[in-house]
Amino acid sequence: MATASDLPVSPLAPARFPDLPKVGGIEAVTHSLGLYKGKVRDDLLVMHFPEGASVGGIFTMSSTRSDDVDRCRAALKAGGGTARVLVVNTGNSNAFTGAAGIAKNAATIASARKMSACGEHEVFISATGVIGEPLPPQIVSGGVEAVWSGLGAPDWQKVANCIRTTDTFAKAAGETVDLNRRNVSIVGVAKGSGMIQPNMATTLNYLFTDAALAPNVCQALISRLGDLTYNCITVDSDTSTSDTLLFFATGAAGGEPIHDPDDPRLAGFVAAMHRVLEDLATQIVRDGEGASKIIEIRVEGAASDASAKVIACSIANSPLVKTAIAAGDANWGRVVMAIGKTAEPVERDQLTLWFGDHLVARDGARAPTYSEEAATRAVSGQEVFIRADLGLGHGRARVWTCDFTDGYVKINGAYRS
Amino acid sequence: MATASDLPVSPLAPARFPDLPKVGGIEAVTHSLGLYKGKVRDDLLVMHFPEGASVGGIFTMSSTRSDDVDRCRAALKAGGGTARVLVVNTGNSNAFTGAAGIAKNAATIASARKMSACGEHEVFISATGVIGEPLPPQIVSGGVEAVWSGLGAPDWQKVANCIRTTDTFAKAAGETVDLNRRNVSIVGVAKGSGMIQPNMATTLNYLFTDAALAPNVCQALISRLGDLTYNCITVDSDTSTSDTLLFFATGAAGGEPIHDPDDPRLAGFVAAMHRVLEDLATQIVRDGEGASKIIEIRVEGAASDASAKVIACSIANSPLVKTAIAAGDANWGRVVMAIGKTAEPVERDQLTLWFGDHLVARDGARAPTYSEEAATRAVSGQEVFIRADLGLGHGRARVWTCDFTDGYVKINGAYRS
Repeated sequence: MATASDLPVSPLAPARFPDLPKVGGIEAVTHSLGLYKGKVRDDLLVMHFPEGASVGGIFTMSSTRSDDVDRCRAALKAGGGTARVLVVNTGNSNAFTGAAGIAKNAATIASARKMSACGEHEVFISATGVIGEPLPPQIVSGGVEAVWSGLGAPDWQKVANCIRTTDTFAKAAGETVDLNRRNVSIVGVAKGSGMIQPNMATTLNYLFTDAALAPNVCQALISRLGDLTYNCITVDSDTSTSDTLLFFATGAAGGEPIHDPDDPRLAGFVAAMHRVLEDLATQIVRDGEGASKIIEIRVEGAASDASAKVIACSIANSPLVKTAIAAGDANWGRVVMAIGKTAEPVERDQLTLWFGDHLVARDGARAPTYSEEAATRAVSGQEVFIRADLGLGHGRARVWTCDFTDGYVKINGAYRS
Repeated sequence: MATASDLPVSPLAPARFPDLPKVGGIEAVTHSLGLYKGKVRDDLLVMHFPEGASVGGIFTMSSTRSDDVDRCRAALKAGGGTARVLVVNTGNSNAFTGAAGIAKNAATIASARKMSACGEHEVFISATGVIGEPLPPQIVSGGVEAVWSGLGAPDWQKVANCIRTTDTFAKAAGETVDLNRRNVSIVGVAKGSGMIQPNMATTLNYLFTDAALAPNVCQALISRLGDLTYNCITVDSDTSTSDTLLFFATGAAGGEPIHDPDDPRLAGFVAAMHRVLEDLATQIVRDGEGASKIIEIRVEGAASDASAKVIACSIANSPLVKTAIAAGDANWGRVVMAIGKTAEPVERDQLTLWFGDHLVARDGARAPTYSEEAATRAVSGQEVFIRADLGLGHGRARVWTCDFTDGYVKINGAYRS
């Protein structure tokens, strides 16, 4: 079974794992349950939060999502947004496993409750890996009980490595920021865009802070900022059955919890959280299967923000656009095609298009000042920027994707073994 | 510039060009205008229809479509569905060429009217090839006048070859059928899924009959049957700016024209027309860039036919599904993922899935009788059949696509020259 170590590190990877601050109140432990046959690597992450920790989350919209996702959503709804335990396993996604998957999760939650003496809805679970392969229920639940005594201050690099599947590098980001005259930390880890054979890219993402935030603030901020970051990345237009983004706030930095997501004291915190999420989300794109370039697409002048996003995603998901950029081909006609193919309002003759800062098209035709050399230069580096102004309204969106190389086909066509 | 002859013939191509019947009343001529630099090949097709010929058509839904498409649509609307001339050029799509493209089409239509003494709305035009490169207006219009005297009984193989771009084989199909006690012919030619550098796959498709059909019948039949055939094929989810499907009926077989598309006398004709269109449409899929397999996807038990089609297209356009099938990997989890990722109604635990006639999943889990060997066999040949029953209603759809190989990336990443 292919894992991260079988693949060369993405050429778009950051130079090194970041220095990360301590996040007060969090304990973590990682362990190997042997879910990767023939490999010794951590595949179980258990995290423990202090009493009163808050949580918010957003999840895959898939109709064929895993029971794990359903349980996290139910826990947020029924439990009012408090969290004590997070359990993540890699090597098996527990998706489309029917009754066996439900039994596995029930056992995991029971073990976590037993160890932490918490409520059912204070346990959050995720899994990533092969779809449709049932696991005996006691493997993960037994693991939780066995490793519990090892909980301690998180080693973020171990945590980020533990949740990797075929990611070619461990993904984390963090900041410290002033909130209400206290120094608070934000740290996030993510996995994604790597494939675990034989299945789909999955993103699992966890953000932690020691700020004191009420549950409704956690939920409001992760919904709002997740929409501007994680919901703006695409590798291949496919949607995982397991995508999960959870935001935990321990309150260990002290102070009265903030109860209003629009509290002006949150401004600096929100900006930092936005940067951390954007950093993590674009790291996922940088690890897209076979990616050799990261592409940022801005659509402006659309009828609405939602319309701009549909059009930006149409460009970002077009195989013809992505293969051209992989080849360093300034094929702007394909971008025009991708803009035109959605059902959103577009007026052909009002469209203006730039590659980098080079104007390539306007007024329904190639720009008179178009330079093949300048346009080619704009798509030749590792970072490509495409901007379209539809000239219709004030809607705007920003989306990130990667190019489409034969590496993608090779990675995703590799037979399960 | 790459053309058909640079690429090896698709392994999915029919063994030979079909024998085709004569279609009374039609004249055609093909010619080389030199639009393919450094290649001698026909790139201009002119066809002439007798007075009173009917026409119907369907077109790309792209907002950035070419002026050629706009003119055909306008002609159908303003002219009431009569046709005298069809002019097609390859080597340049005339899309996103602004005022130059409009001038080119005005000149072409003027020349066609001069030669055939017909109305403005009786001339239909198409073009395929590079986007955004203006052509001097007199090249095609001059060609129409120069070749007019060469019009004669169509050589279908020449016609089908003339409209090819990077198609690896010429596409045609035809039948003779009894209509109202007369022997009538249907012949269609198509191009598509090949790329003309540097731009997108474009389908151009023309169907001809000598049956006597009123314009409203032509339009109703091509709309209805186009929807079941051309609108059910996908190679890469990208939508051309030039897609055109026109249906011409000369009436040369004699008899009173049929005026009601639901006239019971049409039953045999409609069935034959459906077969011809399905044959042409699947030939386009068989020539998908880099294709090594053709995949038929049936979705049943959906909330509606429209819902079934969205879900079938989600499977057909999933890069993860298509790369797995290219590799002969029975990766049914990816099909579950693709079914789940749309906004259409899907109940995870009511889904039933077959690869070929092998049951792979039901009741929200892998089928107890699942056999990796049987599932793998079902995706190993050149023709793959996937069926999903959603268990919700009576909606159904059938969609064809091809697999996704590194050949696609290579063909579409080739630099423009």
